[in-house]
Amino acid sequence: MKLLVVNQRAFPVMASPLGLRFIARKACLRCYSSSALKWEGGVSMVQGASRGIGLEFVKQLLEKNEKGHVVATCRNPDVASGLLHLKNRFAERLSILPLDLTIESTIEASAKSIRERFGSLNLLINASGILSIPDVLQPVEKSSLLLAYEVNAVGPIMEIKHMWPLLKIGGGSGTERDVAVVANLSARVGSIGDNHLGGWHSYRSSKTALNQLTKTVSVEFARRKDPIICILLHPGTVDTDLSRPFQRNVPEGKLFTKEFSVQKLLGIINNAKKHDNGKFFAWDGQEIPW
Amino acid sequence: MKLLVVNQRAFPVMASPLGLRFIARKACLRCYSSSALKWEGGVSMVQGASRGIGLEFVKQLLEKNEKGHVVATCRNPDVASGLLHLKNRFAERLSILPLDLTIESTIEASAKSIRERFGSLNLLINASGILSIPDVLQPVEKSSLLLAYEVNAVGPIMEIKHMWPLLKIGGGSGTERDVAVVANLSARVGSIGDNHLGGWHSYRSSKTALNQLTKTVSVEFARRKDPIICILLHPGTVDTDLSRPFQRNVPEGKLFTKEFSVQKLLGIINNAKKHDNGKFFAWDGQEIPW
Ligand SMILES: NC(=O)c1ccc[n+]([C@@H]2O[C@H](COP(=O)([O-])OP(=O)(O)OC[C@H]3O[C@@H](n4cnc5c(N)ncnc54)[C@H](OP(=O)(O)O)[C@@H]3O)[C@@H](O)[C@H]2O)c1
Ligand SMILES: NC(=O)c1ccc[n+]([C@@H]2O[C@H](COP(=O)([O-])OP(=O)(O)OC[C@H]3O[C@@H](n4cnc5c(N)ncnc54)[C@H](OP(=O)(O)O)[C@@H]3O)[C@@H](O)[C@H]2O)c1
Repeated sequence: MKLLVVNQRAFPVMASPLGLRFIARKACLRCYSSSALKWEGGVSMVQGASRGIGLEFVKQLLEKNEKGHVVATCRNPDVASGLLHLKNRFAERLSILPLDLTIESTIEASAKSIRERFGSLNLLINASGILSIPDVLQPVEKSSLLLAYEVNAVGPIMEIKHMWPLLKIGGGSGTERDVAVVANLSARVGSIGDNHLGGWHSYRSSKTALNQLTKTVSVEFARRKDPIICILLHPGTVDTDLSRPFQRNVPEGKLFTKEFSVQKLLGIINNAKKHDNGKFFAWDGQEIPW
Repeated sequence: MKLLVVNQRAFPVMASPLGLRFIARKACLRCYSSSALKWEGGVSMVQGASRGIGLEFVKQLLEKNEKGHVVATCRNPDVASGLLHLKNRFAERLSILPLDLTIESTIEASAKSIRERFGSLNLLINASGILSIPDVLQPVEKSSLLLAYEVNAVGPIMEIKHMWPLLKIGGGSGTERDVAVVANLSARVGSIGDNHLGGWHSYRSSKTALNQLTKTVSVEFARRKDPIICILLHPGTVDTDLSRPFQRNVPEGKLFTKEFSVQKLLGIINNAKKHDNGKFFAWDGQEIPW
């Protein structure tokens, strides 16, 4: 390992964590005024919020924290009926922004929008994900491997890259935590040590890569002493569109509702401490091996 | 985990390991005659053999095994001077074929060529890899993450996909092993558990994904009782073009020669047993955590 320490320190491009020094400087200059504001209850962003677990996160965040603000993003806000319904209930505490993880400019635009409205961010949940898409995402085709990687691994990291300056300003301010939290939705099948079954190549390897990228970023945040931690979450097998094609044989009582899973995951997020940085938790708080 | 077992068994597309049933049937029909031949010393393929560790594998395989045949592939055989030099020395024991991992048709063409000439394969070494390419492969750019994934993770799996029928026919026949071996060159920085430094996002996550994909394939080979095992190898820090930009601070004696590293790795490959299937070894035979 020593060798690689040395090697890496010699790699000039990596000296700047996430290649972000420049973005950060720009962002901070613009933000100093608004960052002085305190957002009681904090500002949370849920990416991949049109349906499933992401939508449920938005709902519970708004219901359980009477003062918090939530920014929900999805590919197509106009048809995100669940979000539009919540918008009616929660009015200006909920903002809905368009964001497609495969189009980096939409990530940048949402960062800009959050910067201008709030100036900071305390929680980023990456809840999007793809497993199977009929006639598109097949198990061991090159195009499928690349697509799953782009959406499930690269997307959340690009998201962190652009939200990092806002998370750094936000830290835990206005919340009951000491730190800002990035929670990336991974999956137990992304564990290599726990892989006794094979199958699901595209999904599995994309989630494994997400685990490594999240761990990498967590190490960099810690080294910089940024007030941000990253964690990885496995929600259990949850009754959503994603799991629907595979639910047939799930034993009675083992298919969780979105409500149950998100309640458990929010418990983990709200209690997250610095020493949780870079860890991979299941819904019940147990750590999952890499 | 139980849930997922059930889920996965319910996923019809994954029932066929590597989606290969069809390819395998075609390949076997064509091969039955030639597979009757015994290739004393075995047939080995080294993918990514133009230079560095791959080229050294070709050299040592030819030198140490007087009867074995080696198929060396590279992107541009015409300018692969190291291979052309070996061709002069070893004549028909060495075949050189063009193969670019990012162009699947070249993988298929090399499988066809090996099928027609040998009918089977006993060893596949995936030795290609990219770490940094000035002005192209940057640390946390989307295009870089995707490129590293395509070459370092997807490529070797596509390679296995197309060579699987030949490896299955070959098994350990003509060699001192019981099984055919697929050896994928990974890297210690691909370990998530061992990641205390951050950096090298594109390379790291592509190698982590390679580890997961190789583990996945190894599980499937075992379940089918195919006479093939897959292993992952970390060569140490080796004096090649890949490590050159980062060698400045490597302590005296810690930068291995290609000769030393490949000698160690061939020791691991030649002694590989069924129970090594799916494992990740460093040059010194120590297992590396995921
Ligand atoms: N459900 C489970 O059993 C389970 C188990 C383990 C892990 N997980 C993980 O949990 C997370 C949530 O899964 P879920 O069950 O809620 O899935 P889901 O119901 O299928 O929802 C997936 C979400 O991802 C969004 N999405 C897909 N591609 C996107 C893109 N390119 N850009 C932005 N958003 C995109 C979808 O948006 P659109 O509406 O625009 O398509 C949708 O909001 C995923 O990361 C999943 O891998 C789920
Ligand atoms: N050297 C180290 O310290 C070190 C440490 C850990 C792991 N590794 C791993 O060991 C393996 C060998 O590395 P090395 O040091 O020998 O690297 P190297 O000297 O840079 O050689 C890399 C090889 O990969 C080939 N390649 C690149 N892209 C390709 C593509 N698209 N299709 C087919 N071949 C392609 C190159 O072919 P061209 O000549 O056509 O470019 C070359 O033969 C890699 O997997 C590397 O990640 C090396």
